[in-house]
Amino acid sequence: MKAIIVRRGNSHPELAEVPDPLPESGEALLRTLRVGIDGTDHEVIHGNHGENPEGDDYQILGHEAVAVVEDANGTDLTEGELVVPTVRRPPNGTNDYFKQGEPDMAPDGHYVERGIVGAHGYMSELFTSSPEFLVSVPDSFAEYGFLVEPISNSEKAFEHAFASRSAFEWNPQSALVLGNGPLGLLTLAMLETPSSPFERNYCLGRRDRPDRTIEIIERLGGTYIDSRETPVDRIPDAHEAVDFVYEATGYAKHAFETVDALTPNGVGALLGIPSDWEFKIDGGRLHRELVLQNKALFGSVNSNISQFEAAKVRLSEFPDWFFDAFVTGVYAPSEVETAFATGDESIKTVVEFDTL
Amino acid sequence: MKAIIVRRGNSHPELAEVPDPLPESGEALLRTLRVGIDGTDHEVIHGNHGENPEGDDYQILGHEAVAVVEDANGTDLTEGELVVPTVRRPPNGTNDYFKQGEPDMAPDGHYVERGIVGAHGYMSELFTSSPEFLVSVPDSFAEYGFLVEPISNSEKAFEHAFASRSAFEWNPQSALVLGNGPLGLLTLAMLETPSSPFERNYCLGRRDRPDRTIEIIERLGGTYIDSRETPVDRIPDAHEAVDFVYEATGYAKHAFETVDALTPNGVGALLGIPSDWEFKIDGGRLHRELVLQNKALFGSVNSNISQFEAAKVRLSEFPDWFFDAFVTGVYAPSEVETAFATGDESIKTVVEFDTL
Repeated sequence: MKAIIVRRGNSHPELAEVPDPLPESGEALLRTLRVGIDGTDHEVIHGNHGENPEGDDYQILGHEAVAVVEDANGTDLTEGELVVPTVRRPPNGTNDYFKQGEPDMAPDGHYVERGIVGAHGYMSELFTSSPEFLVSVPDSFAEYGFLVEPISNSEKAFEHAFASRSAFEWNPQSALVLGNGPLGLLTLAMLETPSSPFERNYCLGRRDRPDRTIEIIERLGGTYIDSRETPVDRIPDAHEAVDFVYEATGYAKHAFETVDALTPNGVGALLGIPSDWEFKIDGGRLHRELVLQNKALFGSVNSNISQFEAAKVRLSEFPDWFFDAFVTGVYAPSEVETAFATGDESIKTVVEFDTL
Repeated sequence: MKAIIVRRGNSHPELAEVPDPLPESGEALLRTLRVGIDGTDHEVIHGNHGENPEGDDYQILGHEAVAVVEDANGTDLTEGELVVPTVRRPPNGTNDYFKQGEPDMAPDGHYVERGIVGAHGYMSELFTSSPEFLVSVPDSFAEYGFLVEPISNSEKAFEHAFASRSAFEWNPQSALVLGNGPLGLLTLAMLETPSSPFERNYCLGRRDRPDRTIEIIERLGGTYIDSRETPVDRIPDAHEAVDFVYEATGYAKHAFETVDALTPNGVGALLGIPSDWEFKIDGGRLHRELVLQNKALFGSVNSNISQFEAAKVRLSEFPDWFFDAFVTGVYAPSEVETAFATGDESIKTVVEFDTL
């Protein structure tokens, strides 16, 4: 079958012919429709995420997918059913994190990640999976169901944020998304859905107008903040201190400036994954602010099946125009180079292997 | 009446004669038994906590008290009943934080603190309070009931720590207390009570043996860690990465080193109140560790009445020997200078105004 892979030692994706996967007992065979591309894929391509699947000198990319059940193979799935696969799998047999339905909380060594580390991804005509790692979605998700995965990461972050403030009466009204990349924009869209409790949402970027991401931010109802004019720690003066910060830049100074952007009792979720970087902070002041104002910070990675389910509900609340504005390119597997190219005109690109 | 006060412009406590307080309607008159001294009192003395009560050029010190109802004054209290007062009061009329029973979550300007900022404390023969800010305690608390207040601060921190990890199955087993001052030792004693889920507890200090605090740590069942030999970020190698860190040093670098001391999915509670201090950190690495390992940090200050109630239950679980070892001096108000003196031989001192 055709697959988009990165070979050991290379740092570019390529279309290749690889063996068809054979479903083991208890696994179904899936036919891939679309697979989204995100920053993690670029990190995998540049070798920042470690090992190929055992025994292979290449890795099939992709972890944001929507697919159709091709062969139920004795599982309780229905052929033709649309599904979205989760990302983490147990490495060798299962473990407590998977048994509890919380692979997202498993530490290093207790999971592999499809398309990221130690397991093949979904950028291939076919893939296999146990049904426990698949979320059933309606046929209307055939085009944009691949967004369930990135949204599920934010669902987890939202869940942990509310949990962290659950020891008291917390009624957040304002949120700040750091970063106008795909995850930032999706998260802003989540904050702007009718069921969201957040009434005033800001999104930070560093783009000049006219810009597609700024247009999306404003059409969603959010306020664009240019970080070159208003650094994160000046946002309380320029706009307001916010109840919730969602960091999706991977710019490490933002993690610490988040403390200043928060209102008392607020919480910051960190999702970016920066490299080592030494810099100076006023650690005394930050520490004191955290304490005297009951502020919180936490990191969040990956997501579990219940968060995929929540993402599925959330996605159905998104306005129709959003998808057309947000998905800036749908490419055939043969257009791999264009699909993975990045630039200010590109927001979210997707590889289409098949349609319903 | 006699009171221990600090006068405006001075930076030492003194015994003075001040007017007896008059209970307003709805307030009871309380006769003080004992008032503990802590680091915050020393900060108040050195002017780090702002204003005296409106209209006065002095502040009565003390916020860790146990007292007896002298005159119920029409409230539903019983004369002779033993009580522990909470610390925060509404500044001018009440507000939502107080109405919700969460004055500990009120931001600056929405509270005064008795003995700390904007309101007189409890280091006087008599004080007044509305019953809603008093926790009834049994007569057996006459000597050590003043410890309910500091313990309640840790109860709040524990509550927020568990809340922050409540979105997943969190079964913490190990804890690290940073600081072997009075709050650190009380918190270690809490972690070592029979009802505590924590099985292995560490306490960091920088004292040479023989030392009273190290003796208490070890008698409680904890492991002493000398920070001069084992810095916080080396604790995982030397001992183990811990599920929970409780910072009670006010040493700002500890706030950031806490990230390294935590095991994946762990949480750090910050309670110290440092001054401004710029230093270098590897912010990229810390940010990344927070994210990839789902770690959390939060600040916590003050406590509410339900946490005072929890502290009351907790205190009754403490071993008897602890109080004798922990309270290193009980002083008459006239011995104010000795009571406030600090040194390695002193752990917790208390001023005794009266006995049951």
